Amino acid sequence: MKFTKITQQHILDLEQILGKDSVYTQSEIRQDYGSDETEDLSFPPDVVVKPSTTVDVSAIMKYCYQHNIAVTPIGARTGLSGGALSVYGGVGLSMEKFNKIIEVDTLNQQVTTETGVITQVLQEEVAKHGLYYPPDPSSRGSCFIGGNLAENSGGPRAVKYGVTKDFVLSLEVVLPDGEIIQTGARTLKNSTGYNLTQLMVGSEGTLGIITKATLKLVPMPRYQLLLLVPFYSEEKACEAVSAIFRAGITPSALEFMERDAIDWVLRFVDDVTVPVEADIRAHLLIEVDGNHLESLMLDCEKITEVIQQYDCGEVLFADDDAQKNQLWKLRRKVAEAVKANSVYKEEDTVVPRYQLPKLLKGVKEIGSRYGFQSVCYGHAGDGNLHVNIIRGDLSEKTWDDELPKAIREIFTLCVNLGGTLSGEHGIGLVQKNYMDIAFTERSLSVMKGIKATFDPLGILNPGKIVPD
Amino acid sequence: MKFTKITQQHILDLEQILGKDSVYTQSEIRQDYGSDETEDLSFPPDVVVKPSTTVDVSAIMKYCYQHNIAVTPIGARTGLSGGALSVYGGVGLSMEKFNKIIEVDTLNQQVTTETGVITQVLQEEVAKHGLYYPPDPSSRGSCFIGGNLAENSGGPRAVKYGVTKDFVLSLEVVLPDGEIIQTGARTLKNSTGYNLTQLMVGSEGTLGIITKATLKLVPMPRYQLLLLVPFYSEEKACEAVSAIFRAGITPSALEFMERDAIDWVLRFVDDVTVPVEADIRAHLLIEVDGNHLESLMLDCEKITEVIQQYDCGEVLFADDDAQKNQLWKLRRKVAEAVKANSVYKEEDTVVPRYQLPKLLKGVKEIGSRYGFQSVCYGHAGDGNLHVNIIRGDLSEKTWDDELPKAIREIFTLCVNLGGTLSGEHGIGLVQKNYMDIAFTERSLSVMKGIKATFDPLGILNPGKIVPD
Repeated sequence: MKFTKITQQHILDLEQILGKDSVYTQSEIRQDYGSDETEDLSFPPDVVVKPSTTVDVSAIMKYCYQHNIAVTPIGARTGLSGGALSVYGGVGLSMEKFNKIIEVDTLNQQVTTETGVITQVLQEEVAKHGLYYPPDPSSRGSCFIGGNLAENSGGPRAVKYGVTKDFVLSLEVVLPDGEIIQTGARTLKNSTGYNLTQLMVGSEGTLGIITKATLKLVPMPRYQLLLLVPFYSEEKACEAVSAIFRAGITPSALEFMERDAIDWVLRFVDDVTVPVEADIRAHLLIEVDGNHLESLMLDCEKITEVIQQYDCGEVLFADDDAQKNQLWKLRRKVAEAVKANSVYKEEDTVVPRYQLPKLLKGVKEIGSRYGFQSVCYGHAGDGNLHVNIIRGDLSEKTWDDELPKAIREIFTLCVNLGGTLSGEHGIGLVQKNYMDIAFTERSLSVMKGIKATFDPLGILNPGKIVPD
Repeated sequence: MKFTKITQQHILDLEQILGKDSVYTQSEIRQDYGSDETEDLSFPPDVVVKPSTTVDVSAIMKYCYQHNIAVTPIGARTGLSGGALSVYGGVGLSMEKFNKIIEVDTLNQQVTTETGVITQVLQEEVAKHGLYYPPDPSSRGSCFIGGNLAENSGGPRAVKYGVTKDFVLSLEVVLPDGEIIQTGARTLKNSTGYNLTQLMVGSEGTLGIITKATLKLVPMPRYQLLLLVPFYSEEKACEAVSAIFRAGITPSALEFMERDAIDWVLRFVDDVTVPVEADIRAHLLIEVDGNHLESLMLDCEKITEVIQQYDCGEVLFADDDAQKNQLWKLRRKVAEAVKANSVYKEEDTVVPRYQLPKLLKGVKEIGSRYGFQSVCYGHAGDGNLHVNIIRGDLSEKTWDDELPKAIREIFTLCVNLGGTLSGEHGIGLVQKNYMDIAFTERSLSVMKGIKATFDPLGILNPGKIVPD
């Protein structure tokens, strides 16, 4: 892929388009915008631009399209698949100035927002109106709605409410050539032409830049009850997961953490204390929500009844908001705790939920064959297991040459179990070379064809999703 | 668009591929497969084929691709936008032999099915396992899952559970050139490449032929309570709709019927009796479902409290299953009752739900200007209003020349209210010339680009969705 190298003239032209104070070439800024939360990777753009309006974005794309310059859209840089890395240099287009919530439409229970708004900020704003935007990745305190759209993010509540794609009604998109289109409508149902909305969601900024979104909201449930359940076996914990659903209950969250995950977090954070017996191997964090407290209590009773059959310890029922927050912190801090501990690679494996025990067992078996340790946790209710492979004291050679083989085995196992490569992190840069495991060459060629339709020059977020 | 005209040799070749007994050229059969439930339109294919396997479908498509022959996939012919009409003749490919439910996976709460299975048959099969497939168009007793996928069908339960697209995990698709691909995975979450699954759903058989689908199921709710509420004003009934949601309640169905709809059904069916006061103008049919009866009773109390503010009459609370079935029959038979009464055109308008009163008022105003009567009913909770324009004794000239202008005004109103052209029936043949109201030329060109990527010769279901 050959793109035009950025010259001083291009910088001047971009300054002309956006104003001098929205164009950055300083090395430290470029470095800053050249990495996200994916491993320790660094691919700085040659220039960082910070447009404020859709018209700005359109003007930049028109210019870059005309000059064959690579453009990488950049959100909050919390991504875990390297989707925002400027692997071909060029322009790094930061969406951070798109930070306005345009309208909370309480009458229709929708919100229209710019896409550089932080997910939690949006959630808190709509909560003021008694409304709820459920998708909440662990990074929700810093990630952007635009990044969530790009990666089709999930989070713990996806198990009951669905992922980002299930909340998107309409998008404003700047195409690679700078043209602006609207997709969808502000309606809950839509059978009007090809679903460009759903095609954009999860396309990781490779088909267009999403500048505005109208999202569906739901009424805020009045009550949430939370249980932490210890198990004496990881696999039994995983088996309990599908049993809960088969009992007719749909929890609003059902999270799995293996022993190491809990231990690492407890060492990492100061203000969370949970008593953990020595022979406990894993925990499930189970939440139910709704408007009727008595019904939820009955659901919890039923859950407690079901899990007794899976060799669990004493159930901790969160007493109050403070304890709920502690337990959620325990879960939400796992990724940071792992990161603080060692360089690692995180694989976002996903299988049908009943296959979770087999996946976990397989991952451990592959790990022991290749000699790596993994810390596993994730959204068990969705069959979505985050496998954190710990660098520890593995040699550079093992890490670089052997690990990809092990990861290939893990993904092959996922696909054989009816699953796939990524549940919610996207493919981006770091998983694209495994796409052949999930898709035939023909499927990949269809994806390439779609990419070429939107972006014939291939300038928008090049080097992502589909192998070169 | 120029396709090869079917010759005797083509027929012989198709017989060679499928066997003589799966290829039909008799005039009455071709006529039969040349119409669906859309108005009184008739576009018979030159030959009808009935493949039994994915390999059969692949072989037909390979042959037709090679010979530039138009192919129109045909389901149960219950469609309302003419999506299954062979407007360019050629091969009519009936999916009726794809009638096998492959696996009800109770452990993962999924079903894998061929796509010629009748929706209600699938629903009843999974119900045996305590599972629920909510999308249920009025035609569910005869329509195919494949047609539901093609049109992204909805139905009354969409308001709580979502439409067809929200239940699709994975598809097997035969591309226009005969190649077979799999989309998605058997997982609840998936961020692995472009969402080809969602692109296929709602593409009305123009991008590929869906031969197999894995669908998500949910636990069957234990209880359903049903209310029929009369209102003294159509607009007040519509206003009550969004008020119910704003009270924090999400009904499992919220249907609107204006007075004429009820009257016509009561005349059309023998075994339904509902007392309707003379000055009642509209009804809402409201259902709540769940596992806890007391909670549902509380929801019904709340609903009753809310609707009192909207000038309603006495609420009829369905006592038992027999009465529930009667009330649902009342709703589900509206379309047939209208059809039995007169030639009509049905527009599948959809707006944000709070805009429903404005839409209804606008439709009536446009009707009175153009001199046509309309019977309106539909999925009010989703803002999805079926507008049945009655031919009655309108002249052919008015029907052919004036009505399209009126429809254009109705759709323009929808779009101005934040809505769009179709909520659940699709665009197909009969609405494609209105697509410019909802989309810019550039958006339409993106759709054409996608079509060309999948189907460079344009042989699959030509003449649908996008204006020529």
